[in-house]
Amino acid sequence: MSPQDSTLTLDQFFAPRSVAVVGASADTTKLGYAVLNNLVEHGFTGAVYPINPKVDQILGLPAYTSLTAVPGDIDLAVIVVPPKAVAGVLEEAGQKGVKGAVVITAGFREVGPQGMAMEKELLAIARKTGMRLIGPNCLGLIDTYAPLQASFALGMPMQGQIAFMSQSGALCTSILDMALADDIGFSRFVSLGNKADLNEIDFLQVWGSDPNSKVITAYLEGIADGGRFIEVAREVSKHTPVISIKSGTTQAGSRAVSSHTGTLAGSEKAYEAAFLQAGVLRAGSVQDLFDMAVAFAQQPLPSTDAVAVVTNAGGPGIMATDALERAGLQLATLTSDTQAMLKSGLPSAASAANPVDVLGDAMADRYALAVNAVADDPNVGAIIVVLTPQIMTQIRETAEAVAQVSRRTGKPILTAFMGKQTIGQGERILRANGLPNYPVPERAVAALAAMVRQKRWQERPMPQIEHFEADRNAVAEVFRQVKADGRLTIGDAEARAVQAAYGIPHPRSVLAKTAEEAGQAAEAMGFPVVLKITSPDILHKTDIGGVKLNLSSADAVRDAFDLMVYRAQRYQPSADIWGCLVQQQIKGGKEVLLGMNRDPQFGPLLVFGLGGIYVEALKDVTFRVAPIDRRQAREMLNEIRAYPLLRGVRGEPPSDTEAIVDAILRLSQLVTDFPEIVEIDINPLMVFEQGKGALGIDMRLILR
Amino acid sequence: MSPQDSTLTLDQFFAPRSVAVVGASADTTKLGYAVLNNLVEHGFTGAVYPINPKVDQILGLPAYTSLTAVPGDIDLAVIVVPPKAVAGVLEEAGQKGVKGAVVITAGFREVGPQGMAMEKELLAIARKTGMRLIGPNCLGLIDTYAPLQASFALGMPMQGQIAFMSQSGALCTSILDMALADDIGFSRFVSLGNKADLNEIDFLQVWGSDPNSKVITAYLEGIADGGRFIEVAREVSKHTPVISIKSGTTQAGSRAVSSHTGTLAGSEKAYEAAFLQAGVLRAGSVQDLFDMAVAFAQQPLPSTDAVAVVTNAGGPGIMATDALERAGLQLATLTSDTQAMLKSGLPSAASAANPVDVLGDAMADRYALAVNAVADDPNVGAIIVVLTPQIMTQIRETAEAVAQVSRRTGKPILTAFMGKQTIGQGERILRANGLPNYPVPERAVAALAAMVRQKRWQERPMPQIEHFEADRNAVAEVFRQVKADGRLTIGDAEARAVQAAYGIPHPRSVLAKTAEEAGQAAEAMGFPVVLKITSPDILHKTDIGGVKLNLSSADAVRDAFDLMVYRAQRYQPSADIWGCLVQQQIKGGKEVLLGMNRDPQFGPLLVFGLGGIYVEALKDVTFRVAPIDRRQAREMLNEIRAYPLLRGVRGEPPSDTEAIVDAILRLSQLVTDFPEIVEIDINPLMVFEQGKGALGIDMRLILR
Repeated sequence: MSPQDSTLTLDQFFAPRSVAVVGASADTTKLGYAVLNNLVEHGFTGAVYPINPKVDQILGLPAYTSLTAVPGDIDLAVIVVPPKAVAGVLEEAGQKGVKGAVVITAGFREVGPQGMAMEKELLAIARKTGMRLIGPNCLGLIDTYAPLQASFALGMPMQGQIAFMSQSGALCTSILDMALADDIGFSRFVSLGNKADLNEIDFLQVWGSDPNSKVITAYLEGIADGGRFIEVAREVSKHTPVISIKSGTTQAGSRAVSSHTGTLAGSEKAYEAAFLQAGVLRAGSVQDLFDMAVAFAQQPLPSTDAVAVVTNAGGPGIMATDALERAGLQLATLTSDTQAMLKSGLPSAASAANPVDVLGDAMADRYALAVNAVADDPNVGAIIVVLTPQIMTQIRETAEAVAQVSRRTGKPILTAFMGKQTIGQGERILRANGLPNYPVPERAVAALAAMVRQKRWQERPMPQIEHFEADRNAVAEVFRQVKADGRLTIGDAEARAVQAAYGIPHPRSVLAKTAEEAGQAAEAMGFPVVLKITSPDILHKTDIGGVKLNLSSADAVRDAFDLMVYRAQRYQPSADIWGCLVQQQIKGGKEVLLGMNRDPQFGPLLVFGLGGIYVEALKDVTFRVAPIDRRQAREMLNEIRAYPLLRGVRGEPPSDTEAIVDAILRLSQLVTDFPEIVEIDINPLMVFEQGKGALGIDMRLILR
Repeated sequence: MSPQDSTLTLDQFFAPRSVAVVGASADTTKLGYAVLNNLVEHGFTGAVYPINPKVDQILGLPAYTSLTAVPGDIDLAVIVVPPKAVAGVLEEAGQKGVKGAVVITAGFREVGPQGMAMEKELLAIARKTGMRLIGPNCLGLIDTYAPLQASFALGMPMQGQIAFMSQSGALCTSILDMALADDIGFSRFVSLGNKADLNEIDFLQVWGSDPNSKVITAYLEGIADGGRFIEVAREVSKHTPVISIKSGTTQAGSRAVSSHTGTLAGSEKAYEAAFLQAGVLRAGSVQDLFDMAVAFAQQPLPSTDAVAVVTNAGGPGIMATDALERAGLQLATLTSDTQAMLKSGLPSAASAANPVDVLGDAMADRYALAVNAVADDPNVGAIIVVLTPQIMTQIRETAEAVAQVSRRTGKPILTAFMGKQTIGQGERILRANGLPNYPVPERAVAALAAMVRQKRWQERPMPQIEHFEADRNAVAEVFRQVKADGRLTIGDAEARAVQAAYGIPHPRSVLAKTAEEAGQAAEAMGFPVVLKITSPDILHKTDIGGVKLNLSSADAVRDAFDLMVYRAQRYQPSADIWGCLVQQQIKGGKEVLLGMNRDPQFGPLLVFGLGGIYVEALKDVTFRVAPIDRRQAREMLNEIRAYPLLRGVRGEPPSDTEAIVDAILRLSQLVTDFPEIVEIDINPLMVFEQGKGALGIDMRLILR
């Protein structure tokens, strides 16, 4: 199902007319009580049916012995029965025509193979009846607008614009606990559990068109279908910011993931590339996640990255400025009009340049003047207001003054009212007016940097994948032959055929079967040449003298051929020797590396970096998930630290970077066309001066 | 004054018997009222003398017309009079025998040259009378143990073990406001102001031996005397952690500094190196600073970097694990005894490996079992306890159980009780028991990483500076000659003489005055050789064909000599041509770069990196403030990304790294011996295979 043609709404979860709680209990220590109580307590207006064969009523509601015993229709069933009973309940739900089920019960995939089998059974039942599932092994879900509190978590968060999904149920409880104290508002809240059926991609898609969800946030440990995740997230993030924590990314963390859930954690590099390409903002912690989410939920995106800082203290102003620069944002240059206005309105010791220092004795009026002035400055894209609680400081009045500007300006304003005891009164006013406040300017800047990134992402055109003419059949034929031989590794002449079919340039070369043929081929292509023994059985050519450089006459080529074949036969009598490859010897140029590794979650992960010994020593490489477009390929070049070497340093001529870009794009098409390729290395790709192209000297492929 | 022989105590500030407030006021909107009121309100037990000629008494205390009118002795004067009156007050204080003055009044150095002159006058008066000064342009000081609240900030923080000094007075108010709400305890609190007399180094030194200050924290914008700062901080940080924010480090931030205070901000790289060498922990924000400070104040240092994580939720456990790995800490491998104990005491679904997952339904007893078990595990150096508020979670009881372990174990325990609303009750218990709690595990891990770093720092031996035999006179003679010629740049033969004097190896070379001499010299050293025109007037030799490589016969050398001199004369007739340098031509080896740049704050900043075009393109360099010892020089090598290239990759032989270390140490000695050298480049230093040494091919020096 592609995101374009999908009609998924999940209304049975977010707008049910009736909810049954299977396993509802009157025992206040049971989850079955907590869920029912939440439904009743937190304003759900539809019908609620407790299902429990042992009692007549719970919380004043008549209880039913089973789902089928309920007289009316049931849109949603929340299931809190023991694991072995869940399948039976689902079967019954199917009969009853229930459209959605939240399986809170744990004891499935996460406990081992037997649980995994039981979980598959749940999915089979759901598929059979067209019912959709959340969970199992989850906390439930919340929609503050429905309103619906169908989880066993305590309390109901405020209405707000943040949607949150989590692969950790426990984290949901922490976040709700924090949100209740900090007045953070949510639209929807889903605990994903084991994701037997519905997963992050489904909620991303549905929430992308939910008018109450201005920002979608997630805690993820693994992703079900990497390719589709990128596809859906890329669409949604174009209009709704998507922020995610991806945990289990480090080696130690991944071990913890595998022992915790059954999902396979993708490699860190693949996630980095995938999130970048999908427009997903990565959060380093729950704190980061909500620092960003609150800003997106409450403030407009900045039009530019030029920031004005208004402060009543020099030190924190400098800290804000340091943080801006580190985050790659700009300190806005105020217009002379703005500076004149500030100079006339502020005391002479104040700074009318950015950061605008209204001085320690500033009352609210000085803040109002300064914030208004920078808000009207065309050079300013966003504003950070820093306040320290000094003797004269009017905390509440200043908060109100800033709120007033915020109401009339289209520019985002974030605040860093620093402190806690006396600052609290101002913070409440800021919150009530949709102004995100941060305890230190560095956190305000980090949130703003995410907003700038989102703005740029939204303005960026969708990738335009180029299609090169390529001889797909020729490659298929090579692969067929290789597989027929029972081989999986492809190099030498066969690899060259693949390069040729996809237009990845390579040095001229001829496979010669005799010394005479070798000499003739060398003469035809011009000296010097390289000669290489060619045999599917000999992996380490150099070890047996199977590579000879700098051969500069036909005679030398013939001698080298005979000696090479003689040695190869002596070294490995059983080897099938196809002859020797005569290859144009390349001089000059810079070595870069291109490659692809098929990631278990995201598929073909392209790699580019400086080649030769540097790639190993400096690990100066960058990644993208194929297919990519020209702009993305160019960005790969730009991202490596050694890029200046390709641009040319110390008067060296620039390298032919477009030839590298071209090779990357052709490689991208090749690995997209042939999913059976699990690995490719083009190392080195020799790149010459601008206009003189590049040559893939050595290419190796590994098939599945 | 070196830190060893210093007898500085600053008792006049932290243990005064009597305090006068000059400019005391009965007007509650005045600073002079705030200061007096704070003294009286917050428990100062000595005599307090308001000085104000216009009133008889303030706050029930008799007021005096002047300092000299006070009958008793005065240890400390806090001065809040207008800027022009301060000098007069100080003069009077001197006559009265006052030992210390806190000048709160602003309007000095920070307002321009006239203010600077007035500030110098204050210092002159203080020096004359032996009085010490804090400020001017500051908030005052606080000592919670004296107790003494001699500032105009609101409130008095709790007693605690954190000492704080700040170059921003406003930041003090924010931090006090935060500390009051979060129960963060302080020992001493000083607003440094313009640092006319006493500065960060003085307080560092004095607080280093204050038994109430277990950790010293600072907000700094500039450092008065970089060399002495390193010296003092290096001593103090060996027993007392020193944490500092250094702001104004980025380019934009530095501009803000210069417009804010008069101090010159040192370059970021110099600060990084200096803080590293001084054992000062760098904080990125006020939040980071106190995250670390609270941990140091309340918990013991870890014996190792192996951390046990105990959690009731898988997700946050993974987040903690990810953070540990990113911070370079280890997930402890629990002993089989510990694992057996956990297995027998926890439910079967729990994880008995690290991170220890006690499961979502864990009550306090399960936490107690697990935290006790890991605390007794010899493989565990530190513990992080993560808690999410789930249905069964006993927040208070768990906090108490953790506190009990904390009281009996010598290992640090940090907690991440995640949430806020219901978590608050547990957090108060944790705080009361000296357990630092963080809202997210990532912040607990960051604080722990700082503790591990501090532990390693304390165990690290003090640098042992080696002294090489060197011909100091020879270098002095070269410099004398160069200066006598009115030059400041040294290269070629003169630089080689400097290298020789300090044992920095260089290629064999001879300055030949005639073609004949050149030919003979080349024959004596062996071919091939390089020939270079030598003239103090020709800077860009290659531009006029003044460098010739690969000369392989005496004949070729003679021809090249004549041609070179002919061209040089034609190109620049006025040039003073000394002849040509015949130099052994170096083959093989890897290029590295050594150098020194004299930093305005910290002095000789050594640099090391990969040479050639890579140093420019990759900026793969590292810094230290000279003098350094062998261990530090080796660490420099290790720090560059390209270090594997020196160790040898792809079967290449390792380079002679000890020869590089030796060259760095000799350079360190040279720049320490001659402060008039402001810049040195040895680029490249060619380093050969292990045991084959290194040669400084080209060295250039610039004198002051």
